[in-house]
Amino acid sequence: MPSYQAPLTDLRFLLHDVFDADTLAELPGYAEATPDLIDQILEEAGKFVETVLAPLNQPGDQHGCTLANGTVTTPPGFADAWRAYVEAGWHGLAAEPAYGGQGLPHVLQFVLEEMVSSANLSFGTYPGLTIGATNAILQHGTEALKQRYLPKLVEGRWSGTMCLTEPQCGTDLGLTRARVEPVPDGDPGADGDDLLDADGPRYRLTGTKIFITAGDHDLTENIVHLVLARLPDAPAGIRGISLFLVPKRLPHADGSAGAPNGVTTGSIEHKMGIAGSSTCVLNFDGSIAWLVGTPHKGMRAMFTMMNAARLAVGVQGLGIAEIATQNAVAYARERLQGRRLKGGPATPDKPADPLLVHPDVRRMLMTMKAWTEGARALIIWIGVALDREAKHPDPAVRREAGEFVALMTPVAKAFITDQGVEVANLAIQVWGGHGYIRENGIEQFARDARITQIYEGANGIQALDLVGRKLGQDTGRLLRRFFHPAAAELAAAAADPALADLAKPLAKMFGRLQQVTLLIATRGLADPNEAAAVAHDYLRLFGLVALGVAWLKMAAAAGRRTPPDGFAAAKRALAQFYMDKLLPQGYGHAAAIAAGAKGVMAFDDEMF
Amino acid sequence: MPSYQAPLTDLRFLLHDVFDADTLAELPGYAEATPDLIDQILEEAGKFVETVLAPLNQPGDQHGCTLANGTVTTPPGFADAWRAYVEAGWHGLAAEPAYGGQGLPHVLQFVLEEMVSSANLSFGTYPGLTIGATNAILQHGTEALKQRYLPKLVEGRWSGTMCLTEPQCGTDLGLTRARVEPVPDGDPGADGDDLLDADGPRYRLTGTKIFITAGDHDLTENIVHLVLARLPDAPAGIRGISLFLVPKRLPHADGSAGAPNGVTTGSIEHKMGIAGSSTCVLNFDGSIAWLVGTPHKGMRAMFTMMNAARLAVGVQGLGIAEIATQNAVAYARERLQGRRLKGGPATPDKPADPLLVHPDVRRMLMTMKAWTEGARALIIWIGVALDREAKHPDPAVRREAGEFVALMTPVAKAFITDQGVEVANLAIQVWGGHGYIRENGIEQFARDARITQIYEGANGIQALDLVGRKLGQDTGRLLRRFFHPAAAELAAAAADPALADLAKPLAKMFGRLQQVTLLIATRGLADPNEAAAVAHDYLRLFGLVALGVAWLKMAAAAGRRTPPDGFAAAKRALAQFYMDKLLPQGYGHAAAIAAGAKGVMAFDDEMF
Repeated sequence: MPSYQAPLTDLRFLLHDVFDADTLAELPGYAEATPDLIDQILEEAGKFVETVLAPLNQPGDQHGCTLANGTVTTPPGFADAWRAYVEAGWHGLAAEPAYGGQGLPHVLQFVLEEMVSSANLSFGTYPGLTIGATNAILQHGTEALKQRYLPKLVEGRWSGTMCLTEPQCGTDLGLTRARVEPVPDGDPGADGDDLLDADGPRYRLTGTKIFITAGDHDLTENIVHLVLARLPDAPAGIRGISLFLVPKRLPHADGSAGAPNGVTTGSIEHKMGIAGSSTCVLNFDGSIAWLVGTPHKGMRAMFTMMNAARLAVGVQGLGIAEIATQNAVAYARERLQGRRLKGGPATPDKPADPLLVHPDVRRMLMTMKAWTEGARALIIWIGVALDREAKHPDPAVRREAGEFVALMTPVAKAFITDQGVEVANLAIQVWGGHGYIRENGIEQFARDARITQIYEGANGIQALDLVGRKLGQDTGRLLRRFFHPAAAELAAAAADPALADLAKPLAKMFGRLQQVTLLIATRGLADPNEAAAVAHDYLRLFGLVALGVAWLKMAAAAGRRTPPDGFAAAKRALAQFYMDKLLPQGYGHAAAIAAGAKGVMAFDDEMF
Repeated sequence: MPSYQAPLTDLRFLLHDVFDADTLAELPGYAEATPDLIDQILEEAGKFVETVLAPLNQPGDQHGCTLANGTVTTPPGFADAWRAYVEAGWHGLAAEPAYGGQGLPHVLQFVLEEMVSSANLSFGTYPGLTIGATNAILQHGTEALKQRYLPKLVEGRWSGTMCLTEPQCGTDLGLTRARVEPVPDGDPGADGDDLLDADGPRYRLTGTKIFITAGDHDLTENIVHLVLARLPDAPAGIRGISLFLVPKRLPHADGSAGAPNGVTTGSIEHKMGIAGSSTCVLNFDGSIAWLVGTPHKGMRAMFTMMNAARLAVGVQGLGIAEIATQNAVAYARERLQGRRLKGGPATPDKPADPLLVHPDVRRMLMTMKAWTEGARALIIWIGVALDREAKHPDPAVRREAGEFVALMTPVAKAFITDQGVEVANLAIQVWGGHGYIRENGIEQFARDARITQIYEGANGIQALDLVGRKLGQDTGRLLRRFFHPAAAELAAAAADPALADLAKPLAKMFGRLQQVTLLIATRGLADPNEAAAVAHDYLRLFGLVALGVAWLKMAAAAGRRTPPDGFAAAKRALAQFYMDKLLPQGYGHAAAIAAGAKGVMAFDDEMF
């Protein structure tokens, strides 16, 4: 079975030394988040996921979820683990204290989510979706809905979902067919007992939703679905979609879960991976529903959930990359195969040397580490910004932090999940044939990780978000939230002899990024296809530079470490590896961007 | 269920117009291989795999192989399909007429293997391994062994395996522990009836082999294992390995399969993919064995099988890429989602436009097509060379063709399987969430393809073969077998206004390849780690340039097509796409190579 140890040293370094998470305690509402408490949370979270969640991952893949008598059963141990997770307080870590949460910084939520994703990606989908639903209600629900649902969701007695996709629409939600009707006079509601009108006007919702993660399961006594549907008077298309809250069971006035609300599970999907996460077809048959947010503005409310979910999916990519790397390194230390090329046998007393002596194995492992640690740095960077956006007293700081988060969200989601899949595949490669065998648990990482490139907006959609929405917003103001600090970091590093070898190649690539940004902005104004056709390459180049700046920050912090230790030396060496071996991939993307849209759009449909 | 249509138009173009396969009929022994016969074979092979093998692919994945009472059962339909395959003559297509084969050119065998791999990669492993065993006996066996085994193997009544891997050794076969003892006087053999001493001295072989593809199954009445093991007086390490033939059942003098020979199937593996291919742990317990080839020179004999197998695995990567591309294109035509960005709706009568209108989807599909068609061209190029090596009357031509094949084998194996996996993953991405669902059959391509990067020498080993063995051989003579024709092709294209736009970027990248080749040759002389640490990047760069030359050849042939048609226009457009969008990846690899081994080797073991 794969092993996992939470990367506490790296997390402490990022939080304390690189991204100043210690200053979060100075923000109103975060006074408790002292460096000591942060360290304590890291340790306790690590212990929990290592001992409770990790052992359930492989059995979860083998058993999967089952649907019988209309009810989904999660794999053995999941329900107990959920209870333990909730009781230990992990579920409400960053939730609002007003509804029972601990109100700790979001960046710690990211840390927790990384660990959970490493240990058990399937399990992590249940709390993840619940947090998304919680946030949507918190930001767009009426006070009555908040009072009724949020304490249950934060407590983890109830869970949540996001119901967007229908058979005919995934990316294009304008094609949504699910619809609501106002509950007419005389309709007793589902069971007529204590449905409270105080929660707002009731509707009946009808439609079929597919690919609903955590759509049904046996972890909680009730499930709160947030569902996109059309009001009777809705305009066609994307501007006629509203968001509704639909509980699986209608709540009693006393807060307990009451009668079924016409939500049935039609089937569950058999998937390439994340078999422990239930993926449901849900049929809503006149289910009682409440509007969340403004009529016809459901997409905006949904994006509250979506943006948080996109970052969380980026964190999932990181989590998979971490456990894949750990297990590849462990195997490379232990598996004896061949002798090193130079200097005679490394372990002459053994029949062969460990894989780790071989240059190409080292290349694979360093590549895995460089992607993983770079991704973690980017996530912590964004997490701290998210907390400044939420709590900083200065509105200008809040706005700027929010703009940075908005800009980096598609990059974090797409780039880190792409790299998560690559790192998982490299782990298989290091393990060779043994990596292809199910019992060893390595190939599961690749199968599980593969969904992260797809859900919460396929990675191509993230790229379009970056070039189509974020790049041009307010004549590039969002872009400057990354470009300005990157330029400052590079200028400082160029003047520091210890960092100049890193700054030089990165500055060159940053220059390319700036050039092609201008190019796309200019061409895209005249022809939107020009931006869309190169969006993928642009996001890749952007991600490469973003991780480069993250590596530069880490190298700078490592250089300040006293006394200098092996950890700092490794960081500096990996930063150099990143700049020398991985960052140059950006040249290919820059060239592809320069070539523009012509070749892509001029290819006749019949030619495919 | 996924659809598949054999790519006959593209194959005809490559064989007839680009790589002059028509001239093969002028070679001694290939007189039958006329252009008409070639076309007939393409069509018939296409029909066979489309109707017989493709429908068994998804059920094969679901059922997998089962082991019960010591016997492996293949998925439903496989045994019947095998019989049909054999009876239709596909199995002996390129086998020696002296032993019942049809003696057709190897390039047609590649064509067949591509189709089989598209339709049913698992099924293809059974004939594939048998051909490997057949070749090893043909080239290294005694006349008696040839007479006894080859007709059965060519006929497809018996099948073959390669037994290399043991629990403690995969890549490093020097650690092989399986051993033989001469059959002592008085030993009656297994059943004492008609074991013929004419087949050569008998041994008893003992040991455990793992990951034995097609190690046991229900397709044939006997299985002929080719097994690496040590003679009693064998030197330690790789220079003490010999190759033995071990039938599952001992043959009677009349050619029928007789008593069991002490070969038992300990277990079968549950794998990420190719579930229809049986992967066995085989225990040899004093099994009667005959030496194949020279004592202690088993690695050389094994490489006869291995080199052919490596090319065949490259063809598998191509096969998966082809079917993945076909199904992504089909989905992109049919799935309605969103509207095109420019020019108003493409299908105003429908609720949305097909995916195909979206620039990023087009980018993915063109990328898939460019990798796939480029890979096919490289395979046909190598296949025709293989036939010249085998049959050309001029020994100089034979030698040069053989050197080209030897050089390109690791490139074809590693580069094409890497791209096969990438294309399979792109197919999932085009299908979105639906691609992640097992029932749709798309994710199976990625799971099946993943083994091709591992077996028959992991792709890192291919890269080491290229830089460590092929690059320096005879002061670069092998290298010139590609560099010279590439330079000639580029010179001709540069002078042709219709091709200059392709030749320019390719010439630049070819220049980089030449530069880094010199660099590696120089540095590698002083320090073998310098070559090994950049081997991966070198193989990638080499593959990119090789596919570039293949695309240039295709574009040139397309330009000669009269009258010019849509097919020719598509080829020209895809060639440009390749040069503009994909070839530039080489810049990143060239930079990584220039950075050398230092960063990789100086990273302390403790730092991982």
